[in-house]
Amino acid sequence: MRMSEGVEWALHTCLNLSWVESGEAVPTARLAEFYGLPAAYLNKQLQALARAGILSSTTGPRGGFRLARSPEKVTLLDVVTAIEGAEEAFRCDQILRHGPGGRQDVDYRQACVISQGMRKAELAWRTELAAQSLADIRATVERRQPSAPGQARSRLAAGAA
Amino acid sequence: MRMSEGVEWALHTCLNLSWVESGEAVPTARLAEFYGLPAAYLNKQLQALARAGILSSTTGPRGGFRLARSPEKVTLLDVVTAIEGAEEAFRCDQILRHGPGGRQDVDYRQACVISQGMRKAELAWRTELAAQSLADIRATVERRQPSAPGQARSRLAAGAA
Repeated sequence: MRMSEGVEWALHTCLNLSWVESGEAVPTARLAEFYGLPAAYLNKQLQALARAGILSSTTGPRGGFRLARSPEKVTLLDVVTAIEGAEEAFRCDQILRHGPGGRQDVDYRQACVISQGMRKAELAWRTELAAQSLADIRATVERRQPSAPGQARSRLAAGAA
Repeated sequence: MRMSEGVEWALHTCLNLSWVESGEAVPTARLAEFYGLPAAYLNKQLQALARAGILSSTTGPRGGFRLARSPEKVTLLDVVTAIEGAEEAFRCDQILRHGPGGRQDVDYRQACVISQGMRKAELAWRTELAAQSLADIRATVERRQPSAPGQARSRLAAGAA
């Protein structure tokens, strides 16, 4: 059970966009070059982030992506959900329905003790993801690596090499 | 990002085996019939549980599977790991290595703030899975559905219909 590589790309790209304070839209090609990522595939992740309201996209010759809301209001859970979907990781096909005494009118995804235990754990994971915002991540990066914001700005801002 | 259906099968099968107190080995066919599961595919999950030391298997005409340790000593995390592997769900391909200032001698899976945040959340999930044993699940099921142990025994024990 693994997330797609798009989650790593999306998280780093959102973080970098949080440093482009001018609010200008950054083209996909420039975002892809930053880490040497395939632009077409990165663009799919950026579109998913836009659909989730994390990025806003503009079209046209000066088009691209920017953060749609402040980094305080984007959590790790928001980004993971935008890329991976909101579906639970534990797959419950309600096999209890086919066992002795199984009932068709019971939703075992809710009623089954095993499903409940698995959901409890998943909730702990989601809660921890939701507790960490892009602003939190950014503050830690800036403390540890003060050159990071400038590097992002100089590579991503308009007129960058 | 979803687990395989084998996790649900494995958890329910381990729970049922915990009620077969005679310690006898239950053949795969009988375990599969319990929920109408495909025997060959269930057998793959049972083999994985055996490799993880959760079940023990015996071959021969009276062969099959039984719990290898007491239900107190089997956690949800043990079963999930046996079926899904121990790999982290967040895939970190260390794209920072290819960004500005990226270093080849740094392990960004450890050093990257985003990786650390993702790992923290995953640890919360694993901790919660590890906090729930098969014995805990079994006690809750027995309280809510007192007929469950008898149903499992009568269907799974030797000479069962």
